[in-house]
Amino acid sequence: MNIYDIAKLSGVSIATVSRVVNGSEKVSEKTRSKVLDIIRQEGYTPNVFAQGLGIGTMHTVGILVPTISDQYMAKCVSYLEDQLTVHGYDCILSCSGFSIEGKEARTQMLLSKHIDALVFVGSTYSGSGESVEETDYIREAAKQAPVFIINGYVKGDNVFCRLCDDRTAMREAVGALLAHGRKDILFLTDSRSYSAREKTAGCIEALEGAGIPVRDEMFLHTENRIHAVRDYLLSINPVFDAAVATDDGIAIGAVKFAQEKGLSVPGDLCVIGYNNSSLAVACNPELTSIDSRAELLCRETIDNILAILHGDASIPACSIQPGRLISRKTTDF
Amino acid sequence: MNIYDIAKLSGVSIATVSRVVNGSEKVSEKTRSKVLDIIRQEGYTPNVFAQGLGIGTMHTVGILVPTISDQYMAKCVSYLEDQLTVHGYDCILSCSGFSIEGKEARTQMLLSKHIDALVFVGSTYSGSGESVEETDYIREAAKQAPVFIINGYVKGDNVFCRLCDDRTAMREAVGALLAHGRKDILFLTDSRSYSAREKTAGCIEALEGAGIPVRDEMFLHTENRIHAVRDYLLSINPVFDAAVATDDGIAIGAVKFAQEKGLSVPGDLCVIGYNNSSLAVACNPELTSIDSRAELLCRETIDNILAILHGDASIPACSIQPGRLISRKTTDF
Repeated sequence: MNIYDIAKLSGVSIATVSRVVNGSEKVSEKTRSKVLDIIRQEGYTPNVFAQGLGIGTMHTVGILVPTISDQYMAKCVSYLEDQLTVHGYDCILSCSGFSIEGKEARTQMLLSKHIDALVFVGSTYSGSGESVEETDYIREAAKQAPVFIINGYVKGDNVFCRLCDDRTAMREAVGALLAHGRKDILFLTDSRSYSAREKTAGCIEALEGAGIPVRDEMFLHTENRIHAVRDYLLSINPVFDAAVATDDGIAIGAVKFAQEKGLSVPGDLCVIGYNNSSLAVACNPELTSIDSRAELLCRETIDNILAILHGDASIPACSIQPGRLISRKTTDF
Repeated sequence: MNIYDIAKLSGVSIATVSRVVNGSEKVSEKTRSKVLDIIRQEGYTPNVFAQGLGIGTMHTVGILVPTISDQYMAKCVSYLEDQLTVHGYDCILSCSGFSIEGKEARTQMLLSKHIDALVFVGSTYSGSGESVEETDYIREAAKQAPVFIINGYVKGDNVFCRLCDDRTAMREAVGALLAHGRKDILFLTDSRSYSAREKTAGCIEALEGAGIPVRDEMFLHTENRIHAVRDYLLSINPVFDAAVATDDGIAIGAVKFAQEKGLSVPGDLCVIGYNNSSLAVACNPELTSIDSRAELLCRETIDNILAILHGDASIPACSIQPGRLISRKTTDF
């Protein structure tokens, strides 16, 4: 139970509960006594409020990532850490891996450290989409502290999702390839996460929009290691004149495949990556990539955490930012 | 005060204190009563021992990095997290930045979370080498928990350094370039850390060993961003036929410079990076790089932490592993 439950039981907004607890003048006497009655009935200690309101807290935010060796996760964590530090908050980070057991255990560990808010980075925390129970631990966690998910979607009280519109970004990227005369698109992914499913859906929408039959063999599941992708493509030798990937490392594997086969990039083969990481710039030719706006989503998350911890309850449960195509040398547009 | 102080006051080894506390038979009655007397005199609680001995602890290890956006740090943290989790330990990570204030504050924060051991990742924690006081906070921390430093050197009780022999690795790499006919070596770095100083010393030793005059303009300080390095080199247009860098990102900047100038790699210009990151494989031609053995240093650290927390005191204060040159396509050997 927390400030959100009290707001619900009192039939008022969280902002109002916050005002009551802070002794603000802007609350009617009737509302004030109703809220205070609920507080007394439910036996809340001031600490419960402190947790929700930023008064006398540990000033610590927990961050959970599946793995920090992924450049997207590392970029997000780096930004969150920097900004939270600037605002006087400590961060504690834990890596959960991709298993449900690991995710649950690390979430509990972070909650036990008296954190004021919890940030999950990556769409693996949305689960596989197969059952709602997969994400129950996130809704449970959200009863103890506000929960943010960066680029993942989970529905629940006190759960806030900050997303990149991966579906539209991918639809537009594939649409651009088709508009520039590419006919055989290959879609490469290493994941079945929420984000990967959105990207897949965007690709299918673009193909359907152009009247191109969607065939299973256009969608390949691979490791996210440059040489592994290259060797996999060499082994199956698919016919394609454009590749889109759900991560830059995978896309660079396709570039290496082209180089191995003597195909020109982008002449014979266009390639578009995702996440606009430093790998995209290391590659030669430099890789066109979709910027998934990690920094923007993190900035929004920080602003929202600070607002919530200062008692502002007017935070949208979900917000979506557009992705952005960064054109470099592996496309001809 | 902790188990190490008790060992010192009792005039016995930490292993002996551990045996006394664990009720081992292998301690003489005289030693046992001496140690127990000290324990009583100093008023230690069992928790203090638990911290040192792995009994009833929080099973949590703190990890400090300057920034997680650096691939070397991310690789180390990823490995440490994975392995500590396998052994039933939680990790909490914090990013300190590079300032002394940030390092001290985050160290205190981690110590306040009841950690069993503290791992500092990166040679920035060795300080600039200008004064011993810079690293006093590490020796202070080591009074509360065993401290490990990955690829940094700090002298102190209960401080354990796990290093890569960067000096020798760089001396051998530059030696190989000279042996293969290169004459004008450029050394590129973004850092003045312990590790960067060791690499610089190794380069100088190789040059001197070959009777080549060491000139200031052979050593360039740059940002660690691929395009920034490329543009810097284009702006100063140095004459060189080989470049060595203290990180792969910097080295790839030199490769991009060569491509911009129409120079062939490795024909006109050999390039060697450092850390053998995924950037080295993303690059084309793929980058020869010195593997600084992050995984090996981390594995040793994990083994040592587990040994210490189980009461084994026979851990060397310092160990050094050789680096390893991974030859790819930016060198002709």
